[in-house]
Amino acid sequence: MTNTPIITAMDILDVRFPTSEGLHGSDAVHPDPDYSCVYVVLHTNTKLKGNGLAFTLGRGNQIIKLGVEALRDLVIGLSLENISNDFGKIWHTLASEGQLRWLGPEKGAVHMSMAAIVNAMWDLWSKYEKKPLWLLLTEMEPERLVKCLDFTWVTDVLTPQEAIILLKKNTKDKDNRIKQMQKTGYPGYTTSAGWLGYSEDFMRTQCRKAISAGFNMFKAKVGSDLGDDIRRLRIIREEIGYDRILGVDANQKWDIQKAIDWMKALQEFKLEFIEEPTSPDDILGHATIRKALAPLGIKVATGECCANRVMWKQLFQAESIDIAQIDATRMGGVNEVILVMLMAAKFGIPVCPHAGGVGLCEMVQHLIMFDYCAISGKLNFSEYVDHLHEHFTEPCVVKNGHYTAPTNPGYSSTMHQTSLHNYQYPHGPEWQKRLQKSKKRKIILDGE
Amino acid sequence: MTNTPIITAMDILDVRFPTSEGLHGSDAVHPDPDYSCVYVVLHTNTKLKGNGLAFTLGRGNQIIKLGVEALRDLVIGLSLENISNDFGKIWHTLASEGQLRWLGPEKGAVHMSMAAIVNAMWDLWSKYEKKPLWLLLTEMEPERLVKCLDFTWVTDVLTPQEAIILLKKNTKDKDNRIKQMQKTGYPGYTTSAGWLGYSEDFMRTQCRKAISAGFNMFKAKVGSDLGDDIRRLRIIREEIGYDRILGVDANQKWDIQKAIDWMKALQEFKLEFIEEPTSPDDILGHATIRKALAPLGIKVATGECCANRVMWKQLFQAESIDIAQIDATRMGGVNEVILVMLMAAKFGIPVCPHAGGVGLCEMVQHLIMFDYCAISGKLNFSEYVDHLHEHFTEPCVVKNGHYTAPTNPGYSSTMHQTSLHNYQYPHGPEWQKRLQKSKKRKIILDGE
Repeated sequence: MTNTPIITAMDILDVRFPTSEGLHGSDAVHPDPDYSCVYVVLHTNTKLKGNGLAFTLGRGNQIIKLGVEALRDLVIGLSLENISNDFGKIWHTLASEGQLRWLGPEKGAVHMSMAAIVNAMWDLWSKYEKKPLWLLLTEMEPERLVKCLDFTWVTDVLTPQEAIILLKKNTKDKDNRIKQMQKTGYPGYTTSAGWLGYSEDFMRTQCRKAISAGFNMFKAKVGSDLGDDIRRLRIIREEIGYDRILGVDANQKWDIQKAIDWMKALQEFKLEFIEEPTSPDDILGHATIRKALAPLGIKVATGECCANRVMWKQLFQAESIDIAQIDATRMGGVNEVILVMLMAAKFGIPVCPHAGGVGLCEMVQHLIMFDYCAISGKLNFSEYVDHLHEHFTEPCVVKNGHYTAPTNPGYSSTMHQTSLHNYQYPHGPEWQKRLQKSKKRKIILDGE
Repeated sequence: MTNTPIITAMDILDVRFPTSEGLHGSDAVHPDPDYSCVYVVLHTNTKLKGNGLAFTLGRGNQIIKLGVEALRDLVIGLSLENISNDFGKIWHTLASEGQLRWLGPEKGAVHMSMAAIVNAMWDLWSKYEKKPLWLLLTEMEPERLVKCLDFTWVTDVLTPQEAIILLKKNTKDKDNRIKQMQKTGYPGYTTSAGWLGYSEDFMRTQCRKAISAGFNMFKAKVGSDLGDDIRRLRIIREEIGYDRILGVDANQKWDIQKAIDWMKALQEFKLEFIEEPTSPDDILGHATIRKALAPLGIKVATGECCANRVMWKQLFQAESIDIAQIDATRMGGVNEVILVMLMAAKFGIPVCPHAGGVGLCEMVQHLIMFDYCAISGKLNFSEYVDHLHEHFTEPCVVKNGHYTAPTNPGYSSTMHQTSLHNYQYPHGPEWQKRLQKSKKRKIILDGE
């Protein structure tokens, strides 16, 4: 790879959607999310651009934006050749900048900022190679792919050599799996029926829509009020029956014993899993909950707020979870997710990505198809939420309850110029309209 | 408590000291720190003000500043009565703001931002009560103190009731311990001799100075080059002998096996502890290292980058550490540190605060004296570094190797107006002078 594009400039946009107005995304600890993202454009000395994003719930987006800004000097001037030849090292440099790392290390706002940049680099690389990301990753030589990863702090469970062996183990049927993805896609599950703020009628309508759209797995939000959870789960089970899979999500609401007690009280609904029963940092707490719920056949899932590969490593070591819900922008982008998927495979834990938000469905479809084709070789379910896809130039397409395989080059993370214009915060017309209506003029200053 | 001050305004300052110019603070993963802080002033409708800060290494300070700004609306309008009557609840509100919490939860930049505010609230409260913070805490009714704490996610190891019992257990000799603090103070240890960037001569001079200043415990930085570590530890042991205690600090440099091997190679120096051998997130990794080094008599210490009480809880549960190095601004301020010190006492783990940086010595002296008087009843060592104290109106005073007990009201976290003026980044004269010299004009924009 020579004469590759060189990154010459970086745009950083604060883009927010006023989803709180419809209570979309309401759960036990996030009552009013405005699904938002920091959107990064890597300009090059060619026509090619790389687009990446980090997802947030609205307030705080300005912090991620400033975090991306703080990394600018480490990004400008890199060529795609630099990146593709030694991505592991470049990733490490971004993750461990000598002064910035104090704000992590490798967790929270600064790590999410890094995700937006790293995801844009992968988009650029895929576009250069004229392949959708999932296929670029799947077809890459294991040795080259492993050079993209930073094994710092995880070599006690996974070394580069082991990773190469893992990737080579499944090559035999890889071509068949690629064809399968291109033909039938990857199974999705839907969260759209069970948000906390929804009325009974709306839930029933959503369930029926989802069934006719081919979904066989559903998820509902729980954790604020036990009586209300029972009422809502009853409605959902009435609609979807007991042959379809139903999981629930507490969004970190409970302490350990409360999680166990609450889930026992929901036993009649034959729930497949409980997602985020407690603090995402509580590795040992999840292990305790898992042990207590195993006799009931209820699995434990977590991951959308799991800060980095070191936390994931321990979730596997401590046998804390049954399902690994990787996220596309929580950690330092694609590279770190690949490491986590490799560790999951080593421990035999299925990967079921978190999605929804802004652009998460678009991105995780690439990650999970790569996992299926090149790492785990096993099909699970990948979350799907029908929100905000219209803002992407290549929105994910779900048919018969399956994500169809992306065919266009890139990471499907490019947004429409009009969307970027209209929803920029706080100066875009959609926000100016709202802010002018609102008496809370101070909000205007919030994002600046 | 009625007619208490009401918070009417909040100033947020980005203050940075160019410590990288002298290699002060250089270690295996932070080659060039500029010790910095975000400094918060809570103005009230009275003459009283609360001052608090969060410490950083320079770049990234602007991110913490924006994090504090994002919490402004939750702070303005609170009265000291609101705070002192229900601090646990107010703390929870700040820690779990419905949109911002996505950037944590309760970790990294947004959590450190919160620390600056919460620390300023405690400074205000102490000044109102005309007591130094350590005495305010020590003399507070256990029931009232426990109401200041947020037990979310830790009730599996500590409930409010247990916390009250723990606090009441040691009341018998409390008055004697208060007198002891006021008479002889709390033992410190020094890190000033062993930073990585120091020359041999400078190290010897620093060791001799520290011995004549009464220190009996020392710490050196290690982890970049084994040969260099051996050379430097030999110099230090030559100077301080083998009767004085010597610990080492790797600042997260190693993977698990490397940590074990490296420390075995330093066996001859009879080291008391290894601090931060690996990722601060690796609870199970620390446990593995501790088990391997126990036969050598080397203890494991960590904490300055331990993100929150949930991580601390697990360090105790998994028997990962021998020494708990709490930090004054890493977590959500005083309240969360108290919870950690209570858990440490329950598990019988000594607390030895991390200090140095900007204002950390000033603050941790209050925390550790409170721990001794009201929680653990046991003396350990508290880190001391002789940097930047001149910028505080009531700098900590170390005599005969002991922190002397603060007597002035507050948290000792108030800085001189001239320091705040001169070192504000990037517009203060000390930075303008440097930035005008530097050709890297872009740095000017970095903090804005």
